Amino acid sequence: MESSSRHVHDTARADARQRDEWSIEFSRIVAFSDGVFAIAITLLVLALEVPENADDLADSILRQRGDVFAYALSFAVLGKLWMSHHRFFSVLDRFDGRLMALNLLYLAFVALVPYTSELLGDYGEQAPAVILYAVGLAGVSLAFAAQIVYAYRAGLVKPEVRGAERRFAVPASFLVSAIFLASIPVALLSPDAAILMWLGIFLVGDRVTERIGISLRPADRG
Amino acid sequence: MESSSRHVHDTARADARQRDEWSIEFSRIVAFSDGVFAIAITLLVLALEVPENADDLADSILRQRGDVFAYALSFAVLGKLWMSHHRFFSVLDRFDGRLMALNLLYLAFVALVPYTSELLGDYGEQAPAVILYAVGLAGVSLAFAAQIVYAYRAGLVKPEVRGAERRFAVPASFLVSAIFLASIPVALLSPDAAILMWLGIFLVGDRVTERIGISLRPADRG
Amino acid sequence: MESSSRHVHDTARADARQRDEWSIEFSRIVAFSDGVFAIAITLLVLALEVPENADDLADSILRQRGDVFAYALSFAVLGKLWMSHHRFFSVLDRFDGRLMALNLLYLAFVALVPYTSELLGDYGEQAPAVILYAVGLAGVSLAFAAQIVYAYRAGLVKPEVRGAERRFAVPASFLVSAIFLASIPVALLSPDAAILMWLGIFLVGDRVTERIGISLRPADRG
Amino acid sequence: MESSSRHVHDTARADARQRDEWSIEFSRIVAFSDGVFAIAITLLVLALEVPENADDLADSILRQRGDVFAYALSFAVLGKLWMSHHRFFSVLDRFDGRLMALNLLYLAFVALVPYTSELLGDYGEQAPAVILYAVGLAGVSLAFAAQIVYAYRAGLVKPEVRGAERRFAVPASFLVSAIFLASIPVALLSPDAAILMWLGIFLVGDRVTERIGISLRPADRG
Repeated sequence: MESSSRHVHDTARADARQRDEWSIEFSRIVAFSDGVFAIAITLLVLALEVPENADDLADSILRQRGDVFAYALSFAVLGKLWMSHHRFFSVLDRFDGRLMALNLLYLAFVALVPYTSELLGDYGEQAPAVILYAVGLAGVSLAFAAQIVYAYRAGLVKPEVRGAERRFAVPASFLVSAIFLASIPVALLSPDAAILMWLGIFLVGDRVTERIGISLRPADRG
Repeated sequence: MESSSRHVHDTARADARQRDEWSIEFSRIVAFSDGVFAIAITLLVLALEVPENADDLADSILRQRGDVFAYALSFAVLGKLWMSHHRFFSVLDRFDGRLMALNLLYLAFVALVPYTSELLGDYGEQAPAVILYAVGLAGVSLAFAAQIVYAYRAGLVKPEVRGAERRFAVPASFLVSAIFLASIPVALLSPDAAILMWLGIFLVGDRVTERIGISLRPADRG
Repeated sequence: MESSSRHVHDTARADARQRDEWSIEFSRIVAFSDGVFAIAITLLVLALEVPENADDLADSILRQRGDVFAYALSFAVLGKLWMSHHRFFSVLDRFDGRLMALNLLYLAFVALVPYTSELLGDYGEQAPAVILYAVGLAGVSLAFAAQIVYAYRAGLVKPEVRGAERRFAVPASFLVSAIFLASIPVALLSPDAAILMWLGIFLVGDRVTERIGISLRPADRG
Repeated sequence: MESSSRHVHDTARADARQRDEWSIEFSRIVAFSDGVFAIAITLLVLALEVPENADDLADSILRQRGDVFAYALSFAVLGKLWMSHHRFFSVLDRFDGRLMALNLLYLAFVALVPYTSELLGDYGEQAPAVILYAVGLAGVSLAFAAQIVYAYRAGLVKPEVRGAERRFAVPASFLVSAIFLASIPVALLSPDAAILMWLGIFLVGDRVTERIGISLRPADRG
């Protein structure tokens, strides 16, 4: 009996140790992802170029309105993506190698935004720049949807929120991807219309994540 | 009775778990904000350009005095902002989605400083560069004031420091914003006078935050 | 006897304190390494240059295919390296000054990738660019092999995984280094063949690390 | 008596809470400093420029030897500085606002290294570039010495290591500063001799920090 008790004790200790290790691993992945987000969002400023030997400085600055708009849009987009990523990771119970690979794919699209954003700032009225920006965001949202679906199927999501994830997060992530993909052909006809579609996603996204946020509150669990 | 006791126990455990989750969330937001600050402050150096094929290297370097002044000023400004942000977050009890959004808006202005700083280094004697720098700092300080006011109204500040926050932090943040806004028209008349006003804020800001710092010390709580 | 007991107690406390300090130290080194990885991987995007005054924007973007390929390849390479580094550090029991120095040498090669990647994107069909990329990766993998061998010899690896490390990680790291080194002369004959060799390492590396990963699972320890 | 006991208990809890808060604050400052180091060390790579439209790519790359030397030197310098900073912070018991300000001053010089390093890579044979590099390093080492002296005087260093700090760290930091300052006039006569002096500091610095490291080991405390 004593030996059995010790065995239980040892197993508990091994479990605790294992959990500690997972939690360190987990926090490293989170910190790495947050680092990529923080760097990408701060690199956006490099698209704002200081004019050289400007004759009329005020005029040179005012001509950068497109760059400032792209900066504000991309800062909001990356901020929003980070908050969604943040929320998704907070409902994860654990992770595995495949989720890590999907997360890297996702980050590869996130880290592209400073490039597509600079392109949008310089050539915002031309279809190719708007299309490339939409392709980048579609890539981000599809890689995010892939993470959510995979985490749900592989049982990596915390048990108490699985229902909510299934009902809200999965459809929401596909809806967002669909709208970004749909904005690509729209950009061929009207770049401005495509940009308006993205702004629409912001509003829809907000409502959907808010509903999910509500359903995740502890008061609703009981 | 036993069941009630277990219920209390379970609630306590759920509370502890919830608190753990909040604390992870909180630390991610803090780490993200710190990341943006650390990156923006280190990107300032990119404004110092290495001259190409310089005939007289010493002369080329000495002509960058304006850039070095802007680097020193902006490093001090971002360092100061980071310390204030640091102090503000240390009195927060918790956060919500809206505070997170205000924090992102604040960081969007923080991440702009490498651009406005480079502009100031290159065109420090011209009004438009000084005005844009002032606009950026006014944006930072207004977004910071908005965070403080919102956190105070929404009850997100630790109970024991609410009084001090109300009496010091809110007026101080508006005073700083007001001086930055006031420096914008001043820059039209004299760019140097506007820069002197900012240096004045440093001194005032120091005294005010020091007073708040004193009132937050545990010895004064009893 | 009481004094002896107190001594034991004090020693335990000193040990716990010491362990706490090691763990802080350890986490700082991990965070620093992760930071370098996150920054290097995000700086890759700077190789994608926005064309200035493009007449045919779509054409200018399409001509950047080489840069996009280099971005994707290098993002995957750095992501893979980070995961291996991650796994290696998770089996470390402790570290010392020499391992720290080897880790810095390793990071110096990691931080070079944005440069060799940009070179590969612009001159991917020329031998010198491919050779330099291979030299950089050989440097990374040799510095990594040096870390693994040193950690194993100096007894810095957790006791329970030492066997697995010896049998898999050491040979695997040398195999990877050998292939990168072998790709250097191959690049002189055919740049494309050298790039195919690297892709081969990805597949081999995956299988090997997977086997190591399996042998590290707690179920296999009993 | 009960009330007194409760008071002791409350004080202990307040102390624990306070300690928790200090430790969060402390870890934020450490993380911020590490972030600046990691970013500055990774930005060094931006000094390596990819040649545009190179006729002879191998030749263009080989002409960058100076840049590669500056990269290796600066990576080693920043890595070394980070390890010293790391060690210094690990003997700190707590910090205050003034130490935080000195740390920011120190980081302002650390973040300058990518600029002085690029200058050294491009103009390594000219005195002004070597002098500016030496000035930057003298600034770093003086700001570091100031931190050590201040922390020692203000009683912010852990009691058990105060003696060792006094005997080794303070003289060592001034010795390093003195050699960097002395290398400035030397650079006027011979840039190469100044660079050799820096390499000498590496060796001296290693021995001194090793001695301090030994005296900090727990075995030597008894």
